[in-house]
Amino acid sequence: MTPLIPKEGWHVLHLFYHIDYSQWSLLTEEEKRQAKVNFTELVQEIRATPDTQLLTFSIVSPKSDIGFMLLTPDLHMANAFEKQLTLSLGPEILTPSYSYFSLTEPSEYTITKEQYIAETLIGEKNLAEGSEEFEAGLREFEERMAHYRSYRVYPQLPDWPVVCFYPMTKRRSGSDNWYSLDYERRRELMAGHARVGRTYSGRILQLITGSTGLDEHEWGVTLFAKDTAEVKAIVYEMRFDEVSARYSEFGDFYICLQLPLAELFSRLCL
Amino acid sequence: MTPLIPKEGWHVLHLFYHIDYSQWSLLTEEEKRQAKVNFTELVQEIRATPDTQLLTFSIVSPKSDIGFMLLTPDLHMANAFEKQLTLSLGPEILTPSYSYFSLTEPSEYTITKEQYIAETLIGEKNLAEGSEEFEAGLREFEERMAHYRSYRVYPQLPDWPVVCFYPMTKRRSGSDNWYSLDYERRRELMAGHARVGRTYSGRILQLITGSTGLDEHEWGVTLFAKDTAEVKAIVYEMRFDEVSARYSEFGDFYICLQLPLAELFSRLCL
Amino acid sequence: MTPLIPKEGWHVLHLFYHIDYSQWSLLTEEEKRQAKVNFTELVQEIRATPDTQLLTFSIVSPKSDIGFMLLTPDLHMANAFEKQLTLSLGPEILTPSYSYFSLTEPSEYTITKEQYIAETLIGEKNLAEGSEEFEAGLREFEERMAHYRSYRVYPQLPDWPVVCFYPMTKRRSGSDNWYSLDYERRRELMAGHARVGRTYSGRILQLITGSTGLDEHEWGVTLFAKDTAEVKAIVYEMRFDEVSARYSEFGDFYICLQLPLAELFSRLCL
Amino acid sequence: MTPLIPKEGWHVLHLFYHIDYSQWSLLTEEEKRQAKVNFTELVQEIRATPDTQLLTFSIVSPKSDIGFMLLTPDLHMANAFEKQLTLSLGPEILTPSYSYFSLTEPSEYTITKEQYIAETLIGEKNLAEGSEEFEAGLREFEERMAHYRSYRVYPQLPDWPVVCFYPMTKRRSGSDNWYSLDYERRRELMAGHARVGRTYSGRILQLITGSTGLDEHEWGVTLFAKDTAEVKAIVYEMRFDEVSARYSEFGDFYICLQLPLAELFSRLCL
Amino acid sequence: MTPLIPKEGWHVLHLFYHIDYSQWSLLTEEEKRQAKVNFTELVQEIRATPDTQLLTFSIVSPKSDIGFMLLTPDLHMANAFEKQLTLSLGPEILTPSYSYFSLTEPSEYTITKEQYIAETLIGEKNLAEGSEEFEAGLREFEERMAHYRSYRVYPQLPDWPVVCFYPMTKRRSGSDNWYSLDYERRRELMAGHARVGRTYSGRILQLITGSTGLDEHEWGVTLFAKDTAEVKAIVYEMRFDEVSARYSEFGDFYICLQLPLAELFSRLCL
Repeated sequence: MTPLIPKEGWHVLHLFYHIDYSQWSLLTEEEKRQAKVNFTELVQEIRATPDTQLLTFSIVSPKSDIGFMLLTPDLHMANAFEKQLTLSLGPEILTPSYSYFSLTEPSEYTITKEQYIAETLIGEKNLAEGSEEFEAGLREFEERMAHYRSYRVYPQLPDWPVVCFYPMTKRRSGSDNWYSLDYERRRELMAGHARVGRTYSGRILQLITGSTGLDEHEWGVTLFAKDTAEVKAIVYEMRFDEVSARYSEFGDFYICLQLPLAELFSRLCL
Repeated sequence: MTPLIPKEGWHVLHLFYHIDYSQWSLLTEEEKRQAKVNFTELVQEIRATPDTQLLTFSIVSPKSDIGFMLLTPDLHMANAFEKQLTLSLGPEILTPSYSYFSLTEPSEYTITKEQYIAETLIGEKNLAEGSEEFEAGLREFEERMAHYRSYRVYPQLPDWPVVCFYPMTKRRSGSDNWYSLDYERRRELMAGHARVGRTYSGRILQLITGSTGLDEHEWGVTLFAKDTAEVKAIVYEMRFDEVSARYSEFGDFYICLQLPLAELFSRLCL
Repeated sequence: MTPLIPKEGWHVLHLFYHIDYSQWSLLTEEEKRQAKVNFTELVQEIRATPDTQLLTFSIVSPKSDIGFMLLTPDLHMANAFEKQLTLSLGPEILTPSYSYFSLTEPSEYTITKEQYIAETLIGEKNLAEGSEEFEAGLREFEERMAHYRSYRVYPQLPDWPVVCFYPMTKRRSGSDNWYSLDYERRRELMAGHARVGRTYSGRILQLITGSTGLDEHEWGVTLFAKDTAEVKAIVYEMRFDEVSARYSEFGDFYICLQLPLAELFSRLCL
Repeated sequence: MTPLIPKEGWHVLHLFYHIDYSQWSLLTEEEKRQAKVNFTELVQEIRATPDTQLLTFSIVSPKSDIGFMLLTPDLHMANAFEKQLTLSLGPEILTPSYSYFSLTEPSEYTITKEQYIAETLIGEKNLAEGSEEFEAGLREFEERMAHYRSYRVYPQLPDWPVVCFYPMTKRRSGSDNWYSLDYERRRELMAGHARVGRTYSGRILQLITGSTGLDEHEWGVTLFAKDTAEVKAIVYEMRFDEVSARYSEFGDFYICLQLPLAELFSRLCL
Repeated sequence: MTPLIPKEGWHVLHLFYHIDYSQWSLLTEEEKRQAKVNFTELVQEIRATPDTQLLTFSIVSPKSDIGFMLLTPDLHMANAFEKQLTLSLGPEILTPSYSYFSLTEPSEYTITKEQYIAETLIGEKNLAEGSEEFEAGLREFEERMAHYRSYRVYPQLPDWPVVCFYPMTKRRSGSDNWYSLDYERRRELMAGHARVGRTYSGRILQLITGSTGLDEHEWGVTLFAKDTAEVKAIVYEMRFDEVSARYSEFGDFYICLQLPLAELFSRLCL
């Protein structure tokens, strides 16, 4: 198959499963051991694929038992890995309880080079266009934006233990219609949101992926943290932001614990 | 049975199934081989039926595993093929997870011959009615419209690998009531939508089929693409269009990979 | 049991089932043959019951496989027949996927004798009360209304092949509250609806049954047709009517094919 | 266990089940007979419990097969009986399809003694306070209210064959917010509702039980009738009442047939 | 695993399960006895864990059969205990029907030290800052607040028999948008709510835990009572409060009976 690699970004699959312990208990000890070996080999194979990341989770609360977050460039591979993961412990041991398909994407509301020159380099710092300081400031800005863009479009996921996933949609109802606002107004509102986010820097890492046309909501949000209280705090604080208060609709929230495979098997009594 | 062929258009079934791997694993290798032969023969038989098209999909994300898109004129055949496809790999191997029934239909908002004469041939090009150039312009217009109409009502589906399906309904709530707008206002709004669509020409092929009175929503939308990022881009861009922003409600989105049968079996670990 | 016959109308059950082919495939050929004989005898017994009609359907799309429409005066019989139909092919072969319970009822918005005299016989035709022509006109009106009423309350269902069922509710939200309108305004709105309906005369037969207090929505609508395009056309056209545009909420739509038993078994691969 | 008896009212459980005929068919004739004996003995034991009533139903439409309505003072007993009823025909023969938990309660909007004296005895009948007629009128009023209150809080359920159950909630949305109305306005609105109810006296018996904080809606409504057309008529007529039109949201409606046990077994093909 | 202890509060899991009596009935008497021993030992082990509480429930109504409320500081332990409880009676005996994950948290709307000094000590009692009475009043206030805060953040759950759980969210729709109100307005509204709560002191104990970003709603409410009528009364009375009437949306309500293990097994026919 010719690889199906998007012109920008990687495919992202969040996968949540129930474990059918009744089916599992029918396996012999040897079959169970072999199933775990197969599963481990598949995880290793996926992780060895270029530009591909796979996180493994135990899910908090019986909404789900086991979960994965997969990033990979080729849609054929995303599809193949997902079908193989579902079957990795044997037929119908893992039964899907929820999933989400999205693409990494750059932020739509970052400042442009022209805005930075006008507002900051000239407006604020009062630098002469073409001066050495002006050029240095411009280079610094371009590096920062390239880094941020690369973080959003080609992210390296951290190994922080607490992972929160939820999908969201911008509201289109009566006078609260996000898609009827003009770009500047949306950019302004998103900037307030970003300000709250920055106060959690070092405690919360946030990855927003786009899913309009791909899955039920318009974005998937993945938060990485070291403390569940921080997850609660940032989502609660942002809810008072006009973007969330008036324009956001949220799907269900999944709290995941990122665990190495040996610990994952033991946590899930496999 | 007397065929039930609509006075205009073909019947369209989008069919999505989970594969019950537990049932499948109970079959012997020979039974599995035979099941795949039966399935292949059925697909070939359906494809050999006059005016009938059948696409086969692997579905991205565990929302579904395998999918079909069937176009055929006779309702009896649509019904018979659908029941046979469900059973094609054996009893309860394929369990329906979602389906959609619609009819191909012409666009309601295309320009009429009278409008084209008044607005373009006379108004814009300033041609004398009955002149040679006038007649040539009229013929060209009529051919273009016939072609477009035929594409909508009797489409030839492309073999592009990425297929996105979603159903939609026009909103009827409070001051956002599509069905209370007059025809001209609706035509104007749809024209904006069409303009966006044309900028994706060659990258996205769109087929809109009607399902008012036939299934849960009012239309089914099938997008054909070669890149998931294009699917996301067009649906996202159109959301800012007033038609979508104020008047559209969307069902769930299914991303499908169009695969030849051999590849499909292997992708789905059958 | 003393029969429970409503003071007006017949009980109506729309019944939709999935066929569990896994259970079915466990039966021997002889058991399958016997199951179909039992099923056939039950259908014949129900059809032989006075004032009782039973239609048998193959359902288009895997939302359901097999369906029935049952009309019968006695609630005890309706209940008994329904439980027997569910079991008719053996335990858990038919598993209910959807059902609807309603009563036939006369239209609430027909013209009264007094209105017809004032508006038509005197107002429009200018006839003298008591004159021969007046009396003839009145007789003609009364016969027509009796016929229409009888068609609604004690209908004879046609054998047309395409049957569409959907439930609906009148909206009670904000400024779109049907139940806050006075009778005259509602009658006016319904008259527009009826006008559209009459243009489909001979192509669509419509039966509206009442279910307020009996099932989830307020009415069940059954359309009989010979062409799915006609079903789509009438429901779409009516949606622009103010009654539908502002005041109607629709459940899901089921498209059924009315088939004789032998054809039904073969269609459903039984 | 110390009984948990509310300071006022009885606990009410409406219980609806599917019968798993596949499991049932695995029992021998002797096991089936024994299951029905166990079931019958449990029903008799519950009915012999002080202040306890148990109605047994066949449900119309495959939404459910068998149902119960249980009234009993002690929460421990309500819980124990419910778990035992679920198991009464054997493990997983009855699988819960819907249930509702509520408490009987007096009406909140009845006229007070002070209002009756001021409005009726003095205002309307012009009686002198303390006169013989005044005292007689007062006694008659108090008896009537005591009787009505007792009927609501400690009801004796009738054996009428048709029973309709539905849960409901008062709306709290935008300008239609029941809980923002003051007591007098709510009392006025409820009085209109009661007037409609009285016109069905002798044909419909209505029991309203409270479930705020106990189950998904705020009230459960149980209607007893001898004719389904009466159930439809009263619920439809009340829908035009402002209380329903603007302020009521309804759950699903269940139509039950009250049957003696022998008839129930035969109706349900047990 | 390094413990994952939030900087403030304990993790809370409300767990509700159906018992699969069909699977249970396949066990021998000895296997059932052993399952109950394992279950009992697990409950004891959890209860012996520092700062950990586990309540065991029989659920009223077949919405669920058995339930738990778990409080524990370490997220790894919360996750491990939950997976073990699900499996405690054997594979697939307990199947999750509902669950809720939250964190204990202090109230956001309590009076601050500065407000108490200004409004009460100086404003109302007219005490001189730094005077003996002023200092005593301040100490008393600080002790009371510390106690209340500790009750909310590190609660000791009572053994009261009736437990009601429900999740809730503050509304963000049109003009009823809680998150668009300023802090003072929200504090005022919550104070009215608290006043109602205090009138139930000694009869209802209420624990509110936070779940924004953690589960589907924003808060979980657990009420402890000795009488179901009190649960109904407090939730009903609070519904007229503006906080609830205009700004609250409620999930489903679960009524639980707190029972010792021996009684729990017998109640649930295990």
